[in-house]
Amino acid sequence: MLDKARTLPADQVFLDLEDAVAPLAKEAARGNVVAALREGGWDDKIRTVRVNDLSTPWTYRDVISVVEGAGEHVDCLVLPKVRDAAQVIFVDTLLTQIEKTLGLPIGGIGLELQIETARGLVEIDAIAAASPRTETLVFGPADFMASLNMPSLAVGELNPDYPGDPFHYVLMRLLVAARSHDLQAIDGPHLQIRDVAGFAASARRSAALGYDGKWVLHPDQIEAANEVYSPTPQAYDRAELILDAYEHATSEAGGATGAVMLGDEMIDEASRKLAQVIAAKGRAAGL
Amino acid sequence: MLDKARTLPADQVFLDLEDAVAPLAKEAARGNVVAALREGGWDDKIRTVRVNDLSTPWTYRDVISVVEGAGEHVDCLVLPKVRDAAQVIFVDTLLTQIEKTLGLPIGGIGLELQIETARGLVEIDAIAAASPRTETLVFGPADFMASLNMPSLAVGELNPDYPGDPFHYVLMRLLVAARSHDLQAIDGPHLQIRDVAGFAASARRSAALGYDGKWVLHPDQIEAANEVYSPTPQAYDRAELILDAYEHATSEAGGATGAVMLGDEMIDEASRKLAQVIAAKGRAAGL
Amino acid sequence: MLDKARTLPADQVFLDLEDAVAPLAKEAARGNVVAALREGGWDDKIRTVRVNDLSTPWTYRDVISVVEGAGEHVDCLVLPKVRDAAQVIFVDTLLTQIEKTLGLPIGGIGLELQIETARGLVEIDAIAAASPRTETLVFGPADFMASLNMPSLAVGELNPDYPGDPFHYVLMRLLVAARSHDLQAIDGPHLQIRDVAGFAASARRSAALGYDGKWVLHPDQIEAANEVYSPTPQAYDRAELILDAYEHATSEAGGATGAVMLGDEMIDEASRKLAQVIAAKGRAAGL
Amino acid sequence: MLDKARTLPADQVFLDLEDAVAPLAKEAARGNVVAALREGGWDDKIRTVRVNDLSTPWTYRDVISVVEGAGEHVDCLVLPKVRDAAQVIFVDTLLTQIEKTLGLPIGGIGLELQIETARGLVEIDAIAAASPRTETLVFGPADFMASLNMPSLAVGELNPDYPGDPFHYVLMRLLVAARSHDLQAIDGPHLQIRDVAGFAASARRSAALGYDGKWVLHPDQIEAANEVYSPTPQAYDRAELILDAYEHATSEAGGATGAVMLGDEMIDEASRKLAQVIAAKGRAAGL
Amino acid sequence: MLDKARTLPADQVFLDLEDAVAPLAKEAARGNVVAALREGGWDDKIRTVRVNDLSTPWTYRDVISVVEGAGEHVDCLVLPKVRDAAQVIFVDTLLTQIEKTLGLPIGGIGLELQIETARGLVEIDAIAAASPRTETLVFGPADFMASLNMPSLAVGELNPDYPGDPFHYVLMRLLVAARSHDLQAIDGPHLQIRDVAGFAASARRSAALGYDGKWVLHPDQIEAANEVYSPTPQAYDRAELILDAYEHATSEAGGATGAVMLGDEMIDEASRKLAQVIAAKGRAAGL
Amino acid sequence: MLDKARTLPADQVFLDLEDAVAPLAKEAARGNVVAALREGGWDDKIRTVRVNDLSTPWTYRDVISVVEGAGEHVDCLVLPKVRDAAQVIFVDTLLTQIEKTLGLPIGGIGLELQIETARGLVEIDAIAAASPRTETLVFGPADFMASLNMPSLAVGELNPDYPGDPFHYVLMRLLVAARSHDLQAIDGPHLQIRDVAGFAASARRSAALGYDGKWVLHPDQIEAANEVYSPTPQAYDRAELILDAYEHATSEAGGATGAVMLGDEMIDEASRKLAQVIAAKGRAAGL
Ligand SMILES: CC(C)(COP(=O)(O)OP(=O)(O)OC[C@H]1O[C@@H](n2cnc3c(N)ncnc32)[C@H](O)[C@@H]1OP(=O)(O)O)[C@@H](O)C(=O)NCCC(=O)NCCS
Ligand SMILES: CC(C)(COP(=O)(O)OP(=O)(O)OC[C@H]1O[C@@H](n2cnc3c(N)ncnc32)[C@H](O)[C@@H]1OP(=O)(O)O)[C@@H](O)C(=O)NCCC(=O)NCCS
Ligand SMILES: CC(C)(COP(=O)(O)OP(=O)(O)OC[C@H]1O[C@@H](n2cnc3c(N)ncnc32)[C@H](O)[C@@H]1OP(=O)(O)O)[C@@H](O)C(=O)NCCC(=O)NCCS
Ligand SMILES: CC(C)(COP(=O)(O)OP(=O)(O)OC[C@H]1O[C@@H](n2cnc3c(N)ncnc32)[C@H](O)[C@@H]1OP(=O)(O)O)[C@@H](O)C(=O)NCCC(=O)NCCS
Ligand SMILES: CC(C)(COP(=O)(O)OP(=O)(O)OC[C@H]1O[C@@H](n2cnc3c(N)ncnc32)[C@H](O)[C@@H]1OP(=O)(O)O)[C@@H](O)C(=O)NCCC(=O)NCCS
Ligand SMILES: CC(C)(COP(=O)(O)OP(=O)(O)OC[C@H]1O[C@@H](n2cnc3c(N)ncnc32)[C@H](O)[C@@H]1OP(=O)(O)O)[C@@H](O)C(=O)NCCC(=O)NCCS
Ligand SMILES: [Mg+2]
Ligand SMILES: [Mg+2]
Ligand SMILES: [Mg+2]
Ligand SMILES: [Mg+2]
Ligand SMILES: [Mg+2]
Ligand SMILES: [Mg+2]
Repeated sequence: MLDKARTLPADQVFLDLEDAVAPLAKEAARGNVVAALREGGWDDKIRTVRVNDLSTPWTYRDVISVVEGAGEHVDCLVLPKVRDAAQVIFVDTLLTQIEKTLGLPIGGIGLELQIETARGLVEIDAIAAASPRTETLVFGPADFMASLNMPSLAVGELNPDYPGDPFHYVLMRLLVAARSHDLQAIDGPHLQIRDVAGFAASARRSAALGYDGKWVLHPDQIEAANEVYSPTPQAYDRAELILDAYEHATSEAGGATGAVMLGDEMIDEASRKLAQVIAAKGRAAGL
Repeated sequence: MLDKARTLPADQVFLDLEDAVAPLAKEAARGNVVAALREGGWDDKIRTVRVNDLSTPWTYRDVISVVEGAGEHVDCLVLPKVRDAAQVIFVDTLLTQIEKTLGLPIGGIGLELQIETARGLVEIDAIAAASPRTETLVFGPADFMASLNMPSLAVGELNPDYPGDPFHYVLMRLLVAARSHDLQAIDGPHLQIRDVAGFAASARRSAALGYDGKWVLHPDQIEAANEVYSPTPQAYDRAELILDAYEHATSEAGGATGAVMLGDEMIDEASRKLAQVIAAKGRAAGL
Repeated sequence: MLDKARTLPADQVFLDLEDAVAPLAKEAARGNVVAALREGGWDDKIRTVRVNDLSTPWTYRDVISVVEGAGEHVDCLVLPKVRDAAQVIFVDTLLTQIEKTLGLPIGGIGLELQIETARGLVEIDAIAAASPRTETLVFGPADFMASLNMPSLAVGELNPDYPGDPFHYVLMRLLVAARSHDLQAIDGPHLQIRDVAGFAASARRSAALGYDGKWVLHPDQIEAANEVYSPTPQAYDRAELILDAYEHATSEAGGATGAVMLGDEMIDEASRKLAQVIAAKGRAAGL
Repeated sequence: MLDKARTLPADQVFLDLEDAVAPLAKEAARGNVVAALREGGWDDKIRTVRVNDLSTPWTYRDVISVVEGAGEHVDCLVLPKVRDAAQVIFVDTLLTQIEKTLGLPIGGIGLELQIETARGLVEIDAIAAASPRTETLVFGPADFMASLNMPSLAVGELNPDYPGDPFHYVLMRLLVAARSHDLQAIDGPHLQIRDVAGFAASARRSAALGYDGKWVLHPDQIEAANEVYSPTPQAYDRAELILDAYEHATSEAGGATGAVMLGDEMIDEASRKLAQVIAAKGRAAGL
Repeated sequence: MLDKARTLPADQVFLDLEDAVAPLAKEAARGNVVAALREGGWDDKIRTVRVNDLSTPWTYRDVISVVEGAGEHVDCLVLPKVRDAAQVIFVDTLLTQIEKTLGLPIGGIGLELQIETARGLVEIDAIAAASPRTETLVFGPADFMASLNMPSLAVGELNPDYPGDPFHYVLMRLLVAARSHDLQAIDGPHLQIRDVAGFAASARRSAALGYDGKWVLHPDQIEAANEVYSPTPQAYDRAELILDAYEHATSEAGGATGAVMLGDEMIDEASRKLAQVIAAKGRAAGL
Repeated sequence: MLDKARTLPADQVFLDLEDAVAPLAKEAARGNVVAALREGGWDDKIRTVRVNDLSTPWTYRDVISVVEGAGEHVDCLVLPKVRDAAQVIFVDTLLTQIEKTLGLPIGGIGLELQIETARGLVEIDAIAAASPRTETLVFGPADFMASLNMPSLAVGELNPDYPGDPFHYVLMRLLVAARSHDLQAIDGPHLQIRDVAGFAASARRSAALGYDGKWVLHPDQIEAANEVYSPTPQAYDRAELILDAYEHATSEAGGATGAVMLGDEMIDEASRKLAQVIAAKGRAAGL
């Protein structure tokens, strides 16, 4: 699976010491992860390792084994089930001490934080602000549902008893917290790995809100993910049109006006900012 | 009505000194409540009394009359229209002093807190943390709508002008606050008491999110409530299946693996936690 | 356009120094605004001026030019893209100093605050509490979407990929913050100015939640706005009926009861509060 | 003793339900205090009653008995051993409810708060801000020493082993908290009631820092107290001189200068403020 | 020196990995400390180890080496130069993880926190509240002076240029923070180890304020320390006298009075609390 | 006086728009200050201007006149009577906007903050943290005494009624706040300008605590100031000795020991830090 992972068209790979590893296999898994990292072959994929959460006994040795063993080959650690800012500071502090001891660049290893409990959501603004290492907030739907006692086994899915998206609040709260600290916001995994359409529908919901991506569990989900989180060519073209029209309108030549009509729509500086978002995503996707 | 109440298949009974009592009848009502509690006959129903909120002149005498009069027969007080943590601390402190004076067990009387104003929602995390007596947060839809100036008389209902659930944010914010302090979350009453189907639809919405129950105003609503807040037999069976499959997979015998396929779905420790929620609800409902 | 504005049936007029003015025209625009205010003719319309936000170099001179130039003709300033309470205090402090210097009544000029960034939403409770001058919170959808990286150019619209209202959380969070400080809550503009039906549909969504109104960009939008934010005659009549029934029920004559049936519905003090909301809106609209 | 108290030249009288009353006598004492208040004869002395602190079972009945029994004859309650703001809010809330019930003016009964534990000192800024009823902070030296485990029985005294005033920090912290909320600051009692010189020396220390007065336990202490907390005639005269000189210097006639010499000393607006303090105390003392 | 330490009449011994160990010797010192702990011979002395502070690279390995190596032989860790609550939580969290991993009792290893920087003093209340493991706050005079830029090399001494105790504020602030969380307060070391009189004078200052003890660097300081922090026999006798007199006065037999004269002094419940402090110290010292 | 100021051996000059300027002369003074700054001749003296405090109407025009008029010739503004962090942020924000408008380097103009009220002292930690422009906290004794109602006209002096330094708490609290944010701490002026010995005694008190300097009002005070805030040659020599001894002891050659005897005193890393303070001051003073 690791060999396969090296070949897949994903931007990022993550090696798990948490839920994908049974308790009986935790200690052995550390060695495997270190070996896989040292072996290399990850090209320019972002290499992340998920450690166990701080309610377990495993976190400190996870961090120490991985970073003392392969610190120069790790881009980010993923910390699951973050409850509060102090947990983030714990990992940040431990990383700083290890980096100093090993002579690695201080702050070089980033953090991705999973929000997947009620407490984590309540504390999310403090969590997002806790460390300059933090790059990403990640939603964890299955644990979150368990934390709320949501009585459904269809992880992250719509519910026929409920009108609209049952996850609207949590998705938006996480997204707003992320953006207010210039972090990425990533949607969690879709467990029905044979149902790629279901994956895509779920991805389209978080993409519509502004998420940057979604975890994939299986190679089959990668293509859908790459597609959903890029704008359509139509949207991209319209965005470039707005940018041009606005630039002209506000120039001396265009009359230095700030709010003008483009077709049936008023555009102004706010429209420009919005068009800029889509144009940037489109350019990144090669449109 | 009190006699009837003693016979109904509800887990909990609540005696009201607040909105069900007209201002002219407030003083007399205290005596009635004390008498009803002392008379007994409530079996193992949880006995709660709702006092008036702290913007009125009545709260202190409500609490003192009821607890000095029948403290050993009260399980919880319900405090409505809670605005901030200080109001919770007020009632907690008053209860502690009365319990000390009467020789009742300190902390024996619990609290249920109604969130039904904008301010109460803003302060909900501090409110939920304010007292170890607190057992439950309860949504109060009619007062909440009035607090927001929501221009609808259909309390707690969907609105044809609005796509999705207009109460999503408040329901989720309350639920998350409750869970982050290990409290119960209870949905508020449905006023159309002849419309049991409407009651059930409304109950299904909060049940889908993870609520533990919903207030009933009238005997006709009890059966629907008991049904909606329990899992279906299908869900229960699936949950038990996941628990078994996961236990096997993570055992030595099962290969000590942490993420495995069950049918078309990946399951792991998070799936186990979620299945545990449903299995527990199902067992409690006698499935 | 200013002449026209003087004649339109709107309660409020706002003169913009921010996005409706191109950077090249900022300095000149200050003079125009001062002149328009001094000229008068605004009857009892509320006269507001939007200054540039505090990430620009323009705010202090905007405020000083307008208030030193026409302070006695301004009812409120609109501050866009508010990030935190300190920005509100900045403008409040500057206004106080100018009012003292000119001998204007201290605190006479109010504030309307636009929430249109992730940071502003995170800080909204502190923002709403920051100054006694604040009268209104205003949602700014286009900038907010840009702040979240929402990949859509249909400002404030529903999204076919998303079930329900993608703006539910932000609209509710703003409304709750406003009400918890007794402020007005105003929905932002609809840019498709030729599509009055789209404007009305969007307005009905925020009206359903309890918003007091919505910005209009163009004369064609005014009538729809005035209609959507008033209750229907049916709702108004029902509200008055509830008020009468409740008053009777709680009187000595009515038996001093607190919870009674009105048709198939239980009404009590909370119903009265809710009916009061609609009755008040109805009376204000001349029903 | 109460008869005597009516005749003494003190500004204020305080009737104690706390440490001056043995536990066995607590209940009877409430009746005595109510009787003494209703009897009157206190002229324009400020009438205060000290209730028991909130770690005891007695506070709620102390407050209710006294205020329901003689609320219109009480100026302030004294709350001892205040630990945090919530305790102040408790008493404030209880008073408000009683005042509403009895039809007394809301907020009419003030509060004096004793700071006499480590916790109370840590929380003093929040305590001082907790209620608009608060008029005074009072230092309680004996309880404070016990709270710190200070190994001395000479309450409030200097210590030969310690250079300077062992109470400097607590006295200053309390004074600063009081002034930052425009409250009075009062020094605690001197227990050696036969040692009037010791009383005076202790009073002079707190007076030097800016305290407004000191509790007296016995008639013999009153005269010293009245003297120590008034300025000397020399200081008073110098203060008036500075006020005149400054007024002249800053006038057109005096050259509108802001910093001038008065004898060997520079005086400016800050000197004026300081002179104002002494002039005001002197005028109040009839100098 | 370790052998000697085992024989000295001190309550507590501390093994240092911080300033008593040169940077070149840090790694070796960990092994020495573990060996000394495992060897035993400490009778009922409290065994503490000081780790390096969290601005160094050494802390995590100090903690892990000592606790994984000799966790069952350590009573407390001493954390120097504590800056904020997060540092305390870091060590607490690391200890919890190690205790879980080794099967040691969770929370069994306590913490002593050194306050010896300006930042640490500003944050002291949060620091004192940060962990239930914390037992003691310790003043660190030399580092504290350096942190303030105090231009004196006489660590912890009075200064002829300064009237009174230059350390009054810091000593009192630390003591108040300690007492408000029921912690011990310990004065820092006296570096002039040949000057036992100087040690005693310095100890008498902190003892006068209420400190529980003072660090000793050298065997010669032990006797003075044990003496200074116990009450004199006279004080002890007076304390017992007050306790008896108060008990009598408040009894039925004594007239159930709360404030009575004992000689020339009024005594009441507060006097009792204070006498209790001294009586307890006296009894502990075998008086 | 300005000409004279250019020639004096002070490190810093401050031009006052506050208390040294009578209200009648405020407007004219702004022009004088701008002219004096533009004229130059200040060599490498730090050029500061004190604006009026934010309770007056003058602050905004003070800042704007001075910075728009002579921004490139100002090093710092002095803000008096700072009450809270928001006031600092106000001036910081205004400066940023002016700097942007004029093209000056953003953040180039620093701030010195005067703490001279009870409120300012309560808020001092937030004040010290409020802006990266802040370089210095300055004590203001006369206003502070007035704020506390201290009944003395001898500004900043010892008081015969009070043992020790009445200003110990405020001086230490300010110093600790300054150091915890790496700011300078400066003592306030001595008004008895003919009494240079009094000035020196007062300066020696704050110097003993660690202050960096003291305001001078008059040329006669400069020499004493420069002397008092430098270490004596003896102290300087001892400091260098400690540095050498410590460096040797901790080296391989010295045995890599961390705590050693130097004469009768133990020295370790903390001693080194302290010696470093004095050595640095001594080197700066040319010793
Ligand atoms: C769920 C899971 C066990 C299914 O694995 P499976 O039964 O082997 O799935 P398939 O047979 O469909 O796999 C097809 C191929 O994709 C590979 N593959 C599957 N999941 C992969 C993954 N996450 N990364 C890389 N390769 C993967 C398989 O190894 C297999 O490769 P092969 O063709 O070379 O044999 C596996 O996808 C998995 O472990 N996913 C990750 C789970 C995880 O990360 N959980 C924690 C985060 S929530
Ligand atoms: C709304 C209400 C007044 C309607 O009462 P009603 O007109 O008597 O209703 P019905 O005639 O349908 O009642 C049928 C039976 O159920 C009983 N009943 C109705 N509500 C009941 C309740 N909440 N608890 C116990 N018994 C109830 C009635 O007493 C009646 O009993 P009976 O058959 O022995 O006469 C009544 O249900 C009520 O007071 N509910 C509680 C309101 C409340 O708690 N409000 C505050 C919380 S929001
Ligand atoms: C978008 C906009 C430029 C379109 O203007 P337009 O092309 O002139 O629109 P129309 O031709 O349909 O205008 C019809 C009439 O309404 C007037 N009108 C349009 N918008 C108006 C407004 N906001 N206020 C007053 N009058 C307005 C026009 O002046 C025109 O008047 P006339 O008939 O006397 O010539 C214009 O509506 C506008 O500037 N709106 C305000 C934008 C704004 O406030 N942006 C910032 C807030 S988000
Ligand atoms: C300490 C105390 C018991 C001593 O009382 P005592 O032994 O009667 O003292 P004396 O004999 O010196 O009293 C002389 C006179 O002053 C009166 N007196 C003493 N303290 C008085 C007081 N606090 N208020 C009014 N009168 C007082 C006495 O009644 C006596 O009056 P008389 O001459 O009419 O008989 C008494 O002063 C007292 O109770 N003080 C108040 C204690 C208190 O308030 N504690 C709680 C706050 S810390
Ligand atoms: C300062 C110090 C180096 C002086 O040591 P020294 O020169 O050996 O002192 P002396 O010669 O006076 O010692 C006399 C005896 O007491 C012993 N002794 C000295 N300090 C001791 C200590 N802290 N603990 C136990 N024994 C000690 C010596 O080992 C010597 O024992 P011996 O008679 O068996 O040889 C030593 O006291 C020391 O290291 N103290 C602790 C420093 C410390 O803990 N610093 C960090 C906290 S701030
Ligand atoms: C108090 C004060 C008015 C006394 O001034 P004065 O009566 O002129 O004092 P002297 O006659 O002793 O002055 C001697 C010389 O020193 C000069 N001088 C006095 N204070 C000076 C100052 N602060 N800066 C520069 N030069 C000063 C005088 O101009 C005079 O110069 P000259 O010899 O060239 O004439 C004056 O020192 C002053 O204004 N100080 C500053 C006050 C201030 O800054 N207040 C606000 C901060 S708290
Ligand atoms: Mg998870
Ligand atoms: Mg209600
Ligand atoms: Mg905008
Ligand atoms: Mg007391
Ligand atoms: Mg140290
Ligand atoms: Mg001043």
